[in-house]
Amino acid sequence: MPLWGGAFAEPTDNDLKALNDSISFDQRMYAEDITGSIAYAKAIARAKVISIEEADQIVAGLQQVLAEFESGNFQLQPGDEDIHTAVERRLTEIVGPVGGKLHTGRSRNDQVATDFRLWVLAHQTKVDALLEALQTVIIEKAEHHLHTLMPGYTHLQPAQPITAAHWLMSFFWMLARDRDRLADAQRRTSVSPLGSGALAGNPFNVDRATLAADLGFADVSQNSLDGVSDRDFVAESLFALALMGTHLSRLAEDIIIYSNPLFGYITLNDRYSTGSSIMPQKRNADPMELARGKAGRLIGHLTGLMTTLKGLPSTYNKDLQEDKEAIFDAFDTVGKLLPVTIAIIRTLQINPGKMRAALGDELLATDLAEYLVRKGLPFRQGHHVVGQAVRMASNQGIKLSALPLESLRELSPLFEPDVVEVFDFAASVARRRVIGGPAPEAVTTQIEQAKAWMQAHARQTAQT
Amino acid sequence: MPLWGGAFAEPTDNDLKALNDSISFDQRMYAEDITGSIAYAKAIARAKVISIEEADQIVAGLQQVLAEFESGNFQLQPGDEDIHTAVERRLTEIVGPVGGKLHTGRSRNDQVATDFRLWVLAHQTKVDALLEALQTVIIEKAEHHLHTLMPGYTHLQPAQPITAAHWLMSFFWMLARDRDRLADAQRRTSVSPLGSGALAGNPFNVDRATLAADLGFADVSQNSLDGVSDRDFVAESLFALALMGTHLSRLAEDIIIYSNPLFGYITLNDRYSTGSSIMPQKRNADPMELARGKAGRLIGHLTGLMTTLKGLPSTYNKDLQEDKEAIFDAFDTVGKLLPVTIAIIRTLQINPGKMRAALGDELLATDLAEYLVRKGLPFRQGHHVVGQAVRMASNQGIKLSALPLESLRELSPLFEPDVVEVFDFAASVARRRVIGGPAPEAVTTQIEQAKAWMQAHARQTAQT
Amino acid sequence: MPLWGGAFAEPTDNDLKALNDSISFDQRMYAEDITGSIAYAKAIARAKVISIEEADQIVAGLQQVLAEFESGNFQLQPGDEDIHTAVERRLTEIVGPVGGKLHTGRSRNDQVATDFRLWVLAHQTKVDALLEALQTVIIEKAEHHLHTLMPGYTHLQPAQPITAAHWLMSFFWMLARDRDRLADAQRRTSVSPLGSGALAGNPFNVDRATLAADLGFADVSQNSLDGVSDRDFVAESLFALALMGTHLSRLAEDIIIYSNPLFGYITLNDRYSTGSSIMPQKRNADPMELARGKAGRLIGHLTGLMTTLKGLPSTYNKDLQEDKEAIFDAFDTVGKLLPVTIAIIRTLQINPGKMRAALGDELLATDLAEYLVRKGLPFRQGHHVVGQAVRMASNQGIKLSALPLESLRELSPLFEPDVVEVFDFAASVARRRVIGGPAPEAVTTQIEQAKAWMQAHARQTAQT
Amino acid sequence: MPLWGGAFAEPTDNDLKALNDSISFDQRMYAEDITGSIAYAKAIARAKVISIEEADQIVAGLQQVLAEFESGNFQLQPGDEDIHTAVERRLTEIVGPVGGKLHTGRSRNDQVATDFRLWVLAHQTKVDALLEALQTVIIEKAEHHLHTLMPGYTHLQPAQPITAAHWLMSFFWMLARDRDRLADAQRRTSVSPLGSGALAGNPFNVDRATLAADLGFADVSQNSLDGVSDRDFVAESLFALALMGTHLSRLAEDIIIYSNPLFGYITLNDRYSTGSSIMPQKRNADPMELARGKAGRLIGHLTGLMTTLKGLPSTYNKDLQEDKEAIFDAFDTVGKLLPVTIAIIRTLQINPGKMRAALGDELLATDLAEYLVRKGLPFRQGHHVVGQAVRMASNQGIKLSALPLESLRELSPLFEPDVVEVFDFAASVARRRVIGGPAPEAVTTQIEQAKAWMQAHARQTAQT
Repeated sequence: MPLWGGAFAEPTDNDLKALNDSISFDQRMYAEDITGSIAYAKAIARAKVISIEEADQIVAGLQQVLAEFESGNFQLQPGDEDIHTAVERRLTEIVGPVGGKLHTGRSRNDQVATDFRLWVLAHQTKVDALLEALQTVIIEKAEHHLHTLMPGYTHLQPAQPITAAHWLMSFFWMLARDRDRLADAQRRTSVSPLGSGALAGNPFNVDRATLAADLGFADVSQNSLDGVSDRDFVAESLFALALMGTHLSRLAEDIIIYSNPLFGYITLNDRYSTGSSIMPQKRNADPMELARGKAGRLIGHLTGLMTTLKGLPSTYNKDLQEDKEAIFDAFDTVGKLLPVTIAIIRTLQINPGKMRAALGDELLATDLAEYLVRKGLPFRQGHHVVGQAVRMASNQGIKLSALPLESLRELSPLFEPDVVEVFDFAASVARRRVIGGPAPEAVTTQIEQAKAWMQAHARQTAQT
Repeated sequence: MPLWGGAFAEPTDNDLKALNDSISFDQRMYAEDITGSIAYAKAIARAKVISIEEADQIVAGLQQVLAEFESGNFQLQPGDEDIHTAVERRLTEIVGPVGGKLHTGRSRNDQVATDFRLWVLAHQTKVDALLEALQTVIIEKAEHHLHTLMPGYTHLQPAQPITAAHWLMSFFWMLARDRDRLADAQRRTSVSPLGSGALAGNPFNVDRATLAADLGFADVSQNSLDGVSDRDFVAESLFALALMGTHLSRLAEDIIIYSNPLFGYITLNDRYSTGSSIMPQKRNADPMELARGKAGRLIGHLTGLMTTLKGLPSTYNKDLQEDKEAIFDAFDTVGKLLPVTIAIIRTLQINPGKMRAALGDELLATDLAEYLVRKGLPFRQGHHVVGQAVRMASNQGIKLSALPLESLRELSPLFEPDVVEVFDFAASVARRRVIGGPAPEAVTTQIEQAKAWMQAHARQTAQT
Repeated sequence: MPLWGGAFAEPTDNDLKALNDSISFDQRMYAEDITGSIAYAKAIARAKVISIEEADQIVAGLQQVLAEFESGNFQLQPGDEDIHTAVERRLTEIVGPVGGKLHTGRSRNDQVATDFRLWVLAHQTKVDALLEALQTVIIEKAEHHLHTLMPGYTHLQPAQPITAAHWLMSFFWMLARDRDRLADAQRRTSVSPLGSGALAGNPFNVDRATLAADLGFADVSQNSLDGVSDRDFVAESLFALALMGTHLSRLAEDIIIYSNPLFGYITLNDRYSTGSSIMPQKRNADPMELARGKAGRLIGHLTGLMTTLKGLPSTYNKDLQEDKEAIFDAFDTVGKLLPVTIAIIRTLQINPGKMRAALGDELLATDLAEYLVRKGLPFRQGHHVVGQAVRMASNQGIKLSALPLESLRELSPLFEPDVVEVFDFAASVARRRVIGGPAPEAVTTQIEQAKAWMQAHARQTAQT
Repeated sequence: MPLWGGAFAEPTDNDLKALNDSISFDQRMYAEDITGSIAYAKAIARAKVISIEEADQIVAGLQQVLAEFESGNFQLQPGDEDIHTAVERRLTEIVGPVGGKLHTGRSRNDQVATDFRLWVLAHQTKVDALLEALQTVIIEKAEHHLHTLMPGYTHLQPAQPITAAHWLMSFFWMLARDRDRLADAQRRTSVSPLGSGALAGNPFNVDRATLAADLGFADVSQNSLDGVSDRDFVAESLFALALMGTHLSRLAEDIIIYSNPLFGYITLNDRYSTGSSIMPQKRNADPMELARGKAGRLIGHLTGLMTTLKGLPSTYNKDLQEDKEAIFDAFDTVGKLLPVTIAIIRTLQINPGKMRAALGDELLATDLAEYLVRKGLPFRQGHHVVGQAVRMASNQGIKLSALPLESLRELSPLFEPDVVEVFDFAASVARRRVIGGPAPEAVTTQIEQAKAWMQAHARQTAQT
């Protein structure tokens, strides 16, 4: 019989159990549930609700339950509708009726909210470490390619020359924002609801602040109704993961396109690409396609939870049981995706020759316009003149740099013999040495900034 | 070694396997995979690609694999990256090298699309049967409450009297549309992609039409690129389930509110409500809260899949592997939710006394305006006059029906002694006997229409 | 004062009006509102609620209001909170108090549902015509490229040779399903809620069936509660448009990639590509990028509406006012996107030389394995042997076709001099003449099927 | 001719213009565009790209353009495809060719990103102020109802007594998190991309840091590729608004239910509720229904944008033009919703008598179990005993408090005459004086904490 069956004339239906029970997914919170219960037992002992001896018995029993879980010996029973029931049931088997005192003044509503926050906090930290590792391999790879020229794209059309280092580093900053967001979410997750009861608070005056500190929370919730039903930390974590997922999907798209043979800019390591069951020559960037695809899954989880939250009446409603599977899956998804992404970047072969071969004169058209600007022409006019030059070269079937000076001078008298100096990709890149620019010296600075960011972030998260 | 390893110098990374492998979730399609392979073996025998004897060997081997799955004796091996690999691996263990002929001209791309469609077809049918059962209990419950008066709400404010039967039947028609949509989705699911190869079609000229018919498909896909990458049937099924989920969420919201004690219109059977771990008096409509919450989950799955599909290049991309878990979970969710919903409606106790007690005079204000209309006043003016009457009664702290005739006549001389006849809830309902109205005679007709709909639908789906 | 102000002591707040009023967006339904009102006036005349003369006056007045809208002379007034109020206000100005009779037995709830369905029906038809036009240009373009060889991709890696016609036609079938879905949605939209009143039906026994037929509806809603709050037709239309949007996004992705210069498979017409403000050489496939991006917008609208519907209590709630802007925008978006997409396909320059140049021997690796199959080797072994051959060629830095026969025979004695015949792209394609295959004869059949589909669809939608 | 037309042989198609042009919605950023351009003109003067005199001319011209916009005299021209083009076109009309120098080294890509961030920053601040006002009225209302007892609900079933102040304050903390999130988003929005060029940075070595400071940005983007394509600030703002929307939807759900006459806990001011066109007695909580419904719209916008971002290649793609309408609408939606919500709370009539009348003995069942706990019974047993007592009272049709002591003692000998003291709602609430509890003294502390939070938040946001 479930814990709440006292007032009921009829047993619960089996179909309902299948629908209602959460043990199949919430059992992964066993450690957090037991940690939370140990802290709670001590708290009600401090509040004189139970004796020190009773607390010791309960704590010892809970530690045994934990050991059973850790060793794989815990046996679920048919009545164990959720992890909280299962732990308490087993505790009472071990320690007898005193186990029934553990729940004094506590409700599943504040208990589950507490366990869940502890679980999410731990997983936010794990994902942050993976993101840090990904940032590290990006920097390492970038440091080898400060001078590796490649076409920079907008609209997937070649636009201007950049370097492979600059391209790689662009993802560093997306991940930096992701880690920032995750840290912000973590700050708002680290608030203890324990002591909120079912909705109306704890009647035994437990010291919620000490209890929260015992569990490693940074703060205590300030309203019991909100305490039992706040799932913002779930939505915010899902959002942080989903937006991070879109960043990985953009990296993935680049890698998929750049590893197409017509591009050939990069080659994935054999260990991180897969073949075809019917086409033996294929080198598919499967994991990157999954990265791209899983952004959808993460966005779906976010949408699902927020839709579930929409329009709920105050305090706890059973709808909130829908809060866990999505975030469990989101952390699992990211936990599988990031190690592979890290390995892919670490082992990524960059092919400077292919990148260089794709640089055409037209990527210097902007530089040509800038040349005219330096000669005094307003940019708009320079832009227009170069547009005509591009068309002229195209019509003649020659490269832009092959246009004779006299042809150029028909378009503008400002063209002079030194125009040939424009057609130098490395020089073009080197000119863009502004903060955030692709010039090797600017990217060197950028990498220093990136390392400084990582150190500052590490200090900041260590404090909290 | 995976099936595609021949051209590879290095083994696949373990993290990548964890990310890439789909066996953990696609093994539930084992029966469909084996059915598809049996049909394919016969097809390539008909096309003279393999001999009849080879086909017989393969078919016998596949039947043994099926038996192993059915009996729970199938053993997954480390290299079984997906269900298709696992079945072929085991087949080859059983029948030897001839097993390697099964895949001739077939790719995992058309194979997985075929298996998946077979799986979805079967589950569409199962959900349809559950929806039919839910419609049936709605009708049965409604037939007992043709004359049970209750307030009808708009904006959750009492508006006009209706009957419990009419309220219940409103959900019948939502479910009818759901079943219609599911049937439409099923029609578009029943299209065989088998013979599309990896993307470029089957080179051995297998008879795709016969193969499709063997597998029970109604049609054959017309373009191999589309055949391997069309996941519309998944999106459409998810949509049909998600919209059905919003209907259940609306039913749930009504039941949750109507079973609040201040309403008390209905009482959930003890078997289908749950209690509180801390408040023994509670009767929570938990399953209905889950129904409401799970609409979010279903909408999330739909969003996730469509987002995954967005922007994919032509034909098969690995992103499509994300197509299964969402729909598996959606069918599981609905498969758990509907039986409980059926039981809840079947065992629902309707409390006519509570419903009747909630009928106040103000629910007849519209009838009062209509009274004036029948006396010749334009409706807009009648509406305005009754508005004044309502305020007059409210200011005097009396019921609308208690306003003396002379007071009413101050507002309009059209009020006459027969105005008292307006204040009769049953008569108000009986007047609304138009198609779709709440009058008992109209609801009787509505129920007949509903039964006719069910029969027509059964005939139609039987044909396909 | 708004129509409902009679019972109210205080005027409505201005901020509330800004929030509540829908006239800014629902005025585009003026024609549907007036059409609906004309039909309703006739219906209540038939039901003897008003006289023929009164109906004539009202109809004439409404026609004048319509004329004012059509000519741009209609003047909105401050109190016009929605289009229904605006039309009735103006009608009453024109015809006097008899205008106040129009609303007899009708509520804004059934009125708005009716107007909205009429609007959606008209726009479903418009989108269908645009999709038909897009299918037509796809066929026309494909007919010119039955023999234009190109690489077929999976995972964006070259896989097997196909033709440009086959690639183009793959989109035809996606659009066919879209049109099918739109027709199904339209069938469920064509159900008249008029006569459902506010929620409890019409008390004057109007003939709802005749009224529905007058307005061109195919059917009548069967339950008044459902009639006023059913927004399935909106969700279903949004879904059909959003899924169609994902199809366009996939076409867009192909076009964006194929028009990258390294591919160069296609060239967009200057009229349908745009340039850069800073890089004069750019030819950006902007409209296709918008097509890809707008799939997100459409999916967002679908998600938004379904989330709004989730958990609503029975019958009409003001939340439903959120139903219009999303679908208006979705139809507008598609209405702008499709004409450009049609023009892009119509004017698309296909570059057979570039496509042909991208065909490498490795695209025939599958054919090579099939060669071994035809010599009797099980496919799995053939696949493995070819895998080794691919690696051997790659290690030697030569093309697969350049491997000497003796080298091949080291891998399998089944290789014979006729293996050279495998290396023929056109022959490879021609072998894949199964239904849905890329062989020119199969694509010719496919195009015939496509044309037949269009005729059948036209017949079917003409009937409804 | 558009700015980029130089290299183009054919004019752009009109349908494409209708699809492509953003002027219809981005013109609302005119002030930000002009502010950004003024700062940029000064920056390129500092970098010696243009002379001081030229900069002065440009700045004066831009100020005139701004004045034309502010006074409503700005005239859009057919070629004005976006606000940036329109401003530059008009500038050049005013100042002549020197206007063509403004764009030197700047691209629309960094320009639009800059303008957009400035716009979002301003609107984040506006929403924060509205949220502060809402928090203020919640506190004010709560301060009047510290002792107003009401049922607290879980699962919408009465659970335990709380106070109206406690219920109201629960929303304060949701809004506090919302403001926190908005501040975090704002920090990440306040990063200047100006000087990133089209993608490859500024070639004229403008001082990006000074430029950013001039515009009020707190920081400068560190990578030009990321600078032009980072739309995280949009997604994050949409998320913050959407989650805030779910909080308002929960408040709305409570208000809608509590203002149903059977509850009657609250009465909305006439100015903030609306009537029915057909039912004059209705007081609909329309704005709260819109609040509930608009949460869907906000979630839809978030989903839409994230889906658009998914899978985009590096740097700027035209898909990003889809970033604006959603967030414009989200800020507009919230900007209309919050003032009404503030007014509703401010004018909300709380009906203590109705709340008190709904308190039944069963809400003290938990207290009764706690009574037994204080007598030494383990909670689980106490819970079970009280469950039996509840059923006993229910079976006898009497209130729980009416059970004679002897009956209670049959269930447990621990019941003593002092059990009568349990049945005191105020005492029950007063016992829950833990942090976050409903006891008047605890809520007084809570309100102090809330005020302190507001002051700390104001200090913090003032610094940034």
